[in-house]
Amino acid sequence: MTKPLILVTNDDGVSAPGIRALVEVAQKLGEVVVVAPDQARSGMGHAITLENTLRRTSINYFEGIEAYSCSGTPVDCVKLAVNVFLDRKPDLIISGINHGSNASVNVIYSGTMSAAVEGAMEKIPSLGFSLLDHSIDANFETAKKYAAKIIKETLKRSIPDGICLNVNFPKRGENEIVGIKICRQCHGNWTEEFDVRIDPSGKEYYWLTGVFINYEPEATDTDIWALDNNYISIVPVHCDMTAYSALEKLNNWTL
Amino acid sequence: MTKPLILVTNDDGVSAPGIRALVEVAQKLGEVVVVAPDQARSGMGHAITLENTLRRTSINYFEGIEAYSCSGTPVDCVKLAVNVFLDRKPDLIISGINHGSNASVNVIYSGTMSAAVEGAMEKIPSLGFSLLDHSIDANFETAKKYAAKIIKETLKRSIPDGICLNVNFPKRGENEIVGIKICRQCHGNWTEEFDVRIDPSGKEYYWLTGVFINYEPEATDTDIWALDNNYISIVPVHCDMTAYSALEKLNNWTL
Repeated sequence: MTKPLILVTNDDGVSAPGIRALVEVAQKLGEVVVVAPDQARSGMGHAITLENTLRRTSINYFEGIEAYSCSGTPVDCVKLAVNVFLDRKPDLIISGINHGSNASVNVIYSGTMSAAVEGAMEKIPSLGFSLLDHSIDANFETAKKYAAKIIKETLKRSIPDGICLNVNFPKRGENEIVGIKICRQCHGNWTEEFDVRIDPSGKEYYWLTGVFINYEPEATDTDIWALDNNYISIVPVHCDMTAYSALEKLNNWTL
Repeated sequence: MTKPLILVTNDDGVSAPGIRALVEVAQKLGEVVVVAPDQARSGMGHAITLENTLRRTSINYFEGIEAYSCSGTPVDCVKLAVNVFLDRKPDLIISGINHGSNASVNVIYSGTMSAAVEGAMEKIPSLGFSLLDHSIDANFETAKKYAAKIIKETLKRSIPDGICLNVNFPKRGENEIVGIKICRQCHGNWTEEFDVRIDPSGKEYYWLTGVFINYEPEATDTDIWALDNNYISIVPVHCDMTAYSALEKLNNWTL
């Protein structure tokens, strides 16, 4: 029997510890090919490279694994892998493990999750994994165990076309994890607090910083609640951004 | 009475004819401030600048209008404008007029629409406008008339929090426009056809190209159908990417 072909990507770049952790999980479950950005491309959302060329480089970074770094965004990596680099359609795309949360609205800013959404758009079962720990030294051991379980179940069950899963792991040891919870995306947003600084030549510049605000702290069916309560959160994500609830109201406008 | 404060942005860059057209519409309806990318940032999706600083430059490009170019993405422009540059919260954010379609899944790749989505996330009524004509010489006259109408109705009615409107204009003269249609995002996708080329030093590189495939050509309630039939399409868009239809199914998984 042919092993499932698993494409691994991320947004922290091909040298991030998180993708190494995910490759270690994936190589026990299938044939693995890595196509990931050649540098950190966090916060790239669903960006694609339209006005520039794309390059790939073969890398020997993962022992015994076919791997490429790519000059583009995470979504570019998926598009190139599926349409040019791979000789058959992957059975699964996994993205991550991201260093930091992609819960709530982070999903829309996240290159990790956008790679998974792109996979779903290509009708390939896709999973994005993120650990709530930004550290370069983050411990991925617990995340790896659960990622393996979720990948196995996905390969067995598949996911409806056009939908991918946003999996977030709390920064907890295995004994502290309460379980896995299927959730919806929490309603919340970042309150921006730009750092305004002056460069050596006297000109102003800005750094984006911010604090996340949960608009519905009482709700117990959201990803943020699950993570705050030591669950692993799984949110099914699709690319239909239509606000169906507003259709009727808009039909009453005078246009 | 204070005039409404209207923030104008885009993704084709501050010097694109499309934003000039939108500024001309907006300045008849309110007090206008422009904050737009200093270069074309098409296809940037919801990208934000995390690993680099942001800069702004005052520009005199629009007569009598306070305007800035910004080194970041369209979403950066909205964040900076709302949180740093403006001394009060805008009453409306308008993005565009984009040179090219943002119907169907283009919404997720589009910097123009991501700026509007970001506005919605900040709970500011936001509209993204796009004309189905990529040309630098595109004729925006018909689009301007209808944009004015839609902006006026938005200022009068407002939009539910967290929702923005994706407005697309067919490439048609005023007499050919059948009307304005409230739609849902069409289910479809791009079939990528990368151009593989060889550079002068013998190395391969890739250009992204592609063809859009409509997965539901029979459906008459989609934005693609509306545009194909000479309607202006309006899709309400939100940032909740949860695939609610999949929640129950996932709860049956063995996790």
